[in-house]
Amino acid sequence: MAATGAGRATTAGRMLDLLRTQGTLSRVELAERTGLTPATITNTVRRLIDAGLVHEIGRGHQRGRGQPRRLLELDPAAWHAVGIQVDRTTTTIVVLDFAGTRVAGASLRGSGGERPETTIAALVEHVTDLLRHSGIAPERVLGAGLVTHGPQDRERGMLLTAQPDPAWLEFPLTRTLAERLGIPVLLENDATAAAFGEQWAGTVPADTFGLIYMASGIGGGVIVDGESYRGRTSNAVEIGHIALGGGRAPCLCGNNGCAQAEASPGTVVAQALADASLAARLGIRGGPEDTLADFERLARAWRTGDRAAAALLERSARWIGQAAVTLVNLFDLDTVVLAGPAFATAGPLYRRQVAAELEQRALTRALSRPGVHLAANVETAAAIGGALHVLRTMPVDVPRPPAVIGSG
Amino acid sequence: MAATGAGRATTAGRMLDLLRTQGTLSRVELAERTGLTPATITNTVRRLIDAGLVHEIGRGHQRGRGQPRRLLELDPAAWHAVGIQVDRTTTTIVVLDFAGTRVAGASLRGSGGERPETTIAALVEHVTDLLRHSGIAPERVLGAGLVTHGPQDRERGMLLTAQPDPAWLEFPLTRTLAERLGIPVLLENDATAAAFGEQWAGTVPADTFGLIYMASGIGGGVIVDGESYRGRTSNAVEIGHIALGGGRAPCLCGNNGCAQAEASPGTVVAQALADASLAARLGIRGGPEDTLADFERLARAWRTGDRAAAALLERSARWIGQAAVTLVNLFDLDTVVLAGPAFATAGPLYRRQVAAELEQRALTRALSRPGVHLAANVETAAAIGGALHVLRTMPVDVPRPPAVIGSG
Repeated sequence: MAATGAGRATTAGRMLDLLRTQGTLSRVELAERTGLTPATITNTVRRLIDAGLVHEIGRGHQRGRGQPRRLLELDPAAWHAVGIQVDRTTTTIVVLDFAGTRVAGASLRGSGGERPETTIAALVEHVTDLLRHSGIAPERVLGAGLVTHGPQDRERGMLLTAQPDPAWLEFPLTRTLAERLGIPVLLENDATAAAFGEQWAGTVPADTFGLIYMASGIGGGVIVDGESYRGRTSNAVEIGHIALGGGRAPCLCGNNGCAQAEASPGTVVAQALADASLAARLGIRGGPEDTLADFERLARAWRTGDRAAAALLERSARWIGQAAVTLVNLFDLDTVVLAGPAFATAGPLYRRQVAAELEQRALTRALSRPGVHLAANVETAAAIGGALHVLRTMPVDVPRPPAVIGSG
Repeated sequence: MAATGAGRATTAGRMLDLLRTQGTLSRVELAERTGLTPATITNTVRRLIDAGLVHEIGRGHQRGRGQPRRLLELDPAAWHAVGIQVDRTTTTIVVLDFAGTRVAGASLRGSGGERPETTIAALVEHVTDLLRHSGIAPERVLGAGLVTHGPQDRERGMLLTAQPDPAWLEFPLTRTLAERLGIPVLLENDATAAAFGEQWAGTVPADTFGLIYMASGIGGGVIVDGESYRGRTSNAVEIGHIALGGGRAPCLCGNNGCAQAEASPGTVVAQALADASLAARLGIRGGPEDTLADFERLARAWRTGDRAAAALLERSARWIGQAAVTLVNLFDLDTVVLAGPAFATAGPLYRRQVAAELEQRALTRALSRPGVHLAANVETAAAIGGALHVLRTMPVDVPRPPAVIGSG
């Protein structure tokens, strides 16, 4: 895996990105969209074709009187990438081809209270099986994107938190996983990855938007002009850990009244357990690894008209709505996306409540009506985003153009 | 004022920026810091000298056995820029030379409840006087940066709020001021401008930081890697309008428990008025244009040991501390700067309280100890930043290099 050039900032990388998003483009369209000269486009396309990353297919529509143009497309089989999202209660694995299409996927139980070595051993086994069953040779896998909650040290590939267990704090996650899988591994934040995933899925009608991600925990991501807001150490948009109006519940983070403490699935499930008849009626278990399954029980009960379940979920959704108001007012957004397994069933209830809060309280609501969208891939957006991150940022073999002396 | 090339993104613009920040640099140092080739540096420096923007002074220290190098410096008299910060209760005007040094300044009463035409007429008079008294010819003034609270439409040069008065909503501020002054006018947010001003003053030991700006209102700005976070419409970081834990007071913006409603100078003064003996003792007036003067009375009383005044300010400072925690957790920062006229006297009390809240509640406090700084120019940072914004972004006369064919 030579580090030679198709990273995002390079000409080749930009063209691969465009083809991945658009599906097919002609050379003329590539020139129009990149602002590069036809000569540069021609040379770069030739290199990409020689490297087996791009091929020509058929011909596009005729424009004016000119000849129809040959269309370019990524070769889907050129490379693959793996996305792995791990949470305390769920694990999602996806395999994307070079064009970004999902070719395999699996959904498993989460890390639970296990030590990182145990979780990594299970991940290696599942990823290896998935690749083998899909007939993908490991040497055609560009890398894996490991997606977790924060805070993270992305460069060193470690968690900077003792959640879910002290053994995870500063454990060399990406190094261990890369050694065992035999491919490079990048660490990414779950909400940021989900934002990439949804941007790619085309759900979001804007290239500037915020995303609230809810699994066991609550995280956030912001995309500005198509790029992720990273902050100082890539641990930005911790929307689960900001105090909100009226909130008083103490949070693990040291703050009081955080969305995490007031509105997360764990809190909603704890409130359900406090109502013995509700808990018994819905079969709420209450174990730390049951959180999302218990939350799903409440969501399904809401959908069939259970009023007690609805009241608990609506309280949580109002908090998420308040968090969305803060996100929108601080990051200057008019679009919010909800993603993560907690929204699998309860999504519509949350979407409605978040929209209502934004319409009432977003600072620039008079200038543009805030939009709230449920992710297209509510449960898998983060894993898909982790794999896309690999496809977009890891270098592939593209021979360098000859150096130009004195071009500085 | 030809639009020919020294904007920020151009080679000439980058070199002017570097010289403005560093004071003096040799050609070799310019090459090292920009990564440009010596040939490009030599050519661009020649153009800048020919245009009268840069001159050579003396010689730098000898390095190794080589010849001492000639140092370059901006010609301070080449251009000037005006910065005008207008708030309901204060107006600050500064004039900077081309090197960014303050050569004149004035502090006046604010816009009050006046119509925008009246305020603009007063500004024109004061700016004209200030330039005449300083011996600066209007044709050597590059432009003026008009700095106000948000939300703004920076492109159209208008406020998008009916504060302080409905007549200000969408009034063509920059166009009217530019016509009357005869120079271009750019609109900028007060907190963002203050962040530029402080970055320039060198107070902040980081190129990623947040700033909380408090005049009559409360605003925020975030600088990431030296660049301002702008969001979708440049109306980001509205830190005065986010609900905070435990807060319930209704705010003009539609939200409850905002820092603006709970902690702004107007709220603190209203609380002081509710304590008749305190209000009488300190001579609190309570008029809408007296807010900052009344707040100063409370701050001075705190400094001489008045317990009732201290209690009110400390309550406000805890709220600002909570707002700082939200700012830091969402934008991933470890440095917060406090700027604005409200901190003129009460600054140390606020700095201490904000630091205490951050040490207790910032999410990454274990990774790096959050730093809180009082602005070097607490009262004038925003006006200075407005003028710097003009110096950094408005094009100056630099002859273009000859076009290179096929260099795309």
